[in-house]
Amino acid sequence: MSLVIAGHQLRSRLILGSGGFANLEVLRAAIEASGTELVTVALRRVEPGADGSLLDVIEEAGCRVLPNTAGCYSAREAVRLARLAREALGTEWVKLEVIGDEDTLLPDPAELLDAAATLVAEGFVVLPYTNDDPVLAKRLEQVGCAAVMPAGSPIGSGMGINNPYNLRLIRERSQVPVIVDAGIGTASDAAQAMELGCDGVLLASSVSRARDPVKMARAMRLAVEAGRAAYEAGRIPRRTFAQASSPTDGMPALSPSASASQRTG
Amino acid sequence: MSLVIAGHQLRSRLILGSGGFANLEVLRAAIEASGTELVTVALRRVEPGADGSLLDVIEEAGCRVLPNTAGCYSAREAVRLARLAREALGTEWVKLEVIGDEDTLLPDPAELLDAAATLVAEGFVVLPYTNDDPVLAKRLEQVGCAAVMPAGSPIGSGMGINNPYNLRLIRERSQVPVIVDAGIGTASDAAQAMELGCDGVLLASSVSRARDPVKMARAMRLAVEAGRAAYEAGRIPRRTFAQASSPTDGMPALSPSASASQRTG
Amino acid sequence: MSLVIAGHQLRSRLILGSGGFANLEVLRAAIEASGTELVTVALRRVEPGADGSLLDVIEEAGCRVLPNTAGCYSAREAVRLARLAREALGTEWVKLEVIGDEDTLLPDPAELLDAAATLVAEGFVVLPYTNDDPVLAKRLEQVGCAAVMPAGSPIGSGMGINNPYNLRLIRERSQVPVIVDAGIGTASDAAQAMELGCDGVLLASSVSRARDPVKMARAMRLAVEAGRAAYEAGRIPRRTFAQASSPTDGMPALSPSASASQRTG
Amino acid sequence: MSLVIAGHQLRSRLILGSGGFANLEVLRAAIEASGTELVTVALRRVEPGADGSLLDVIEEAGCRVLPNTAGCYSAREAVRLARLAREALGTEWVKLEVIGDEDTLLPDPAELLDAAATLVAEGFVVLPYTNDDPVLAKRLEQVGCAAVMPAGSPIGSGMGINNPYNLRLIRERSQVPVIVDAGIGTASDAAQAMELGCDGVLLASSVSRARDPVKMARAMRLAVEAGRAAYEAGRIPRRTFAQASSPTDGMPALSPSASASQRTG
Repeated sequence: MSLVIAGHQLRSRLILGSGGFANLEVLRAAIEASGTELVTVALRRVEPGADGSLLDVIEEAGCRVLPNTAGCYSAREAVRLARLAREALGTEWVKLEVIGDEDTLLPDPAELLDAAATLVAEGFVVLPYTNDDPVLAKRLEQVGCAAVMPAGSPIGSGMGINNPYNLRLIRERSQVPVIVDAGIGTASDAAQAMELGCDGVLLASSVSRARDPVKMARAMRLAVEAGRAAYEAGRIPRRTFAQASSPTDGMPALSPSASASQRTG
Repeated sequence: MSLVIAGHQLRSRLILGSGGFANLEVLRAAIEASGTELVTVALRRVEPGADGSLLDVIEEAGCRVLPNTAGCYSAREAVRLARLAREALGTEWVKLEVIGDEDTLLPDPAELLDAAATLVAEGFVVLPYTNDDPVLAKRLEQVGCAAVMPAGSPIGSGMGINNPYNLRLIRERSQVPVIVDAGIGTASDAAQAMELGCDGVLLASSVSRARDPVKMARAMRLAVEAGRAAYEAGRIPRRTFAQASSPTDGMPALSPSASASQRTG
Repeated sequence: MSLVIAGHQLRSRLILGSGGFANLEVLRAAIEASGTELVTVALRRVEPGADGSLLDVIEEAGCRVLPNTAGCYSAREAVRLARLAREALGTEWVKLEVIGDEDTLLPDPAELLDAAATLVAEGFVVLPYTNDDPVLAKRLEQVGCAAVMPAGSPIGSGMGINNPYNLRLIRERSQVPVIVDAGIGTASDAAQAMELGCDGVLLASSVSRARDPVKMARAMRLAVEAGRAAYEAGRIPRRTFAQASSPTDGMPALSPSASASQRTG
Repeated sequence: MSLVIAGHQLRSRLILGSGGFANLEVLRAAIEASGTELVTVALRRVEPGADGSLLDVIEEAGCRVLPNTAGCYSAREAVRLARLAREALGTEWVKLEVIGDEDTLLPDPAELLDAAATLVAEGFVVLPYTNDDPVLAKRLEQVGCAAVMPAGSPIGSGMGINNPYNLRLIRERSQVPVIVDAGIGTASDAAQAMELGCDGVLLASSVSRARDPVKMARAMRLAVEAGRAAYEAGRIPRRTFAQASSPTDGMPALSPSASASQRTG
């Protein structure tokens, strides 16, 4: 049950976004309940005072910080912000977002690819937020991204995985970890992502905006573990017709001698 | 996290079928991994020798035995078998199956209702395996069943929940526990059942016929807990348009003073 | 393209409900646009004055009238209403509804089966509105119904076909026509019903409550014909991987001699 | 019921691919049955002899020819082929395909965008085959494409529309026609595409590889008309609970005076 990104081993397959929480106490508790070891921060939200404490919370929880380039609408802007982040936070890791549409917050494929190539060349560990296009995912891997992070559906939409087929394609063809980033709404969505073979999920609104964020964080931890275990356990195939779990053909009737005793727990 | 049936409290919301396992050792390990406290047995499979040991395994695991009437095609036959079970196993509890079709193993609604009424009148705690019809579920409750157990899809099919809308209707209108029985294929299906508000799931083939039944039993335990916790935590609504988890409008740019130190875990 | 019910041939596979229309003129135009030859009427809506004209509209359109027992909540009530209808309207045909739940208007399976058996014994041509349970559908056929009419989803819900698998099962096992009754919301739903192999669809709210009922009636006529033709034409299988419609391996490049002339239409 | 591309009016919203047909006779009959006025040809398949007759068939049917760049894996290759096509076939129209993956035949987003910009600058009427990414669709429009043609699912897969949400987004934001190209398997898929508001569909394998291609061509023509009419007619909303088409509360019982006469058709 571990996820390896750029040679760095994470015991949890769940990555948590730090945005949208009511306050830092809730964030702290959610981080703990989720079991995560990697937490994203929007660079623009990091301010000298209050946000120093955001970073403190993440650090004290023993988590690696993953700066993102949320709010950037061009490769140039994203690259500039990533460089600032590296300098400020002392990490080469960056969750690369280059938004192409302000309503859906879906990425701009060409700008994303450009930004990824530039940052890889500068030594960054690039984790790009991408759409669910298998070809773009492969291109991002080819320019050297450390993982690909396709959306299940738009950020904050909670629609879950709109096109499981595409995610499966991405997973089958990828040599780097595939992390479902965006769209997860509830626990079964996270489990499904893992059952498709994906290596991790990145959660933000589904946890931070749930009625009870800490309980949802725990639900997501369990769901990711459940989905991964089910994937490894090898599920039964889907069948068109029923198959009895207890075939009874030719079975003898109940024997009185089995009546022994009460069977209650 | 507890399920109450007929006044009896179960700490696990997962009910396990004992059929289809390779041998009793695998069953024993799967029971433990699943965390269940209630295990079904097909009466016709209980034989003096070998099956005494089936009951022993369940009893030693601290579980209550739930005899089922698998293989019965009429109310008369099911009632007769339930009476034999009560005498033999010393329990009033019965999972009532009255099959109406040998290919799909779907229940016969009229015969099921008849058998349920008869058994309730005789003091049984009746847990009927039913289709996903909200009206039939209500009728079963009205004749005194202790729970209703609708199929997500046919037994052993692994198709999951074919009609979530019907399960939600059944749950909203029921005063007794609703347990999804049949059709679950993998962990996300079990989580979804719980997210719909259902009170439990009954698993058989999805565990016993998985490539690694014990690991799947554990996956299912986690999935049931995840789905229930997500249900209680209150998920975010589905939205048509994206909502940024990290709103960045008017945010100051990254401040150098936040650069403090390396944030790795 | 014809549907045979109880030896009576209908050129259209579309059955239209007469309820919910703004006025009789719209109904008249919708009947014509739909191409139907069979129109249902709720008996309780048939009044001496105004409703005489409802029947006139149907008769003048050359359609057979199909009285229904809408609003009945027991076998006894439905049987009584069917007898009244036969006497009043001079037809043995009846669309049998025995509602089991006033919110969803889903049928009561046991009462429906009782009423169907009674009416068949009295010489009625019984077309029962049923849920999508394959076993109940088979029982209705076995007591002598002339067709079975499963719901795709609840009446007036417009959700379409919630469980296509069940409808396919019903169609595969039935010796009488299977007509999807209830739940159809738009044209693609009607086409899907026919592609599943069903013999007809019964439409009411989807037409009468559309913004433009007459145009929707025409859409539905086309959709039913489209779906049936597609069913008969034999669709391509679903594939996991792409198959080029224009394989180009080893193909010669474009030849200049094909340039002949302008190809515009 | 007409589709306007680059100022050219087409009476049919159905575009047909010419590949995959058993022979030219079947193609000729399918064109007629489909009602199309625009037929694609793979340039590489056009040979001096036999393929001169392919173009003849299209021309004699009164259809405009739409050359495609099937089989091209780079912008450079696709641009070169488009130029050859213009010279050879005397049409500025081109269906632009730049494949990014040989298994799924999904397009390469960056190469596609480059090729589109180049061809638009050279005066082509560019109809790009794209994935279902709303951002890429908008970029293609911005560089001057005359329409965008997103895939419902991979070419030849027959899976239908895997992500209706994305197609709806593309349609809502586009100022040029949106034509679903690839993935359609059967009539209801085509109807659904139109109900999502799309302006047309491009069909190839679903027709040419159906068991009866000519009947399927007719089914598709009806389905496209049905879907468009339903879209224009304004469907009923989806409801969670049932709404009776024939409200019966407070209705008088059947009146004998309505019994007039036999109502059969």
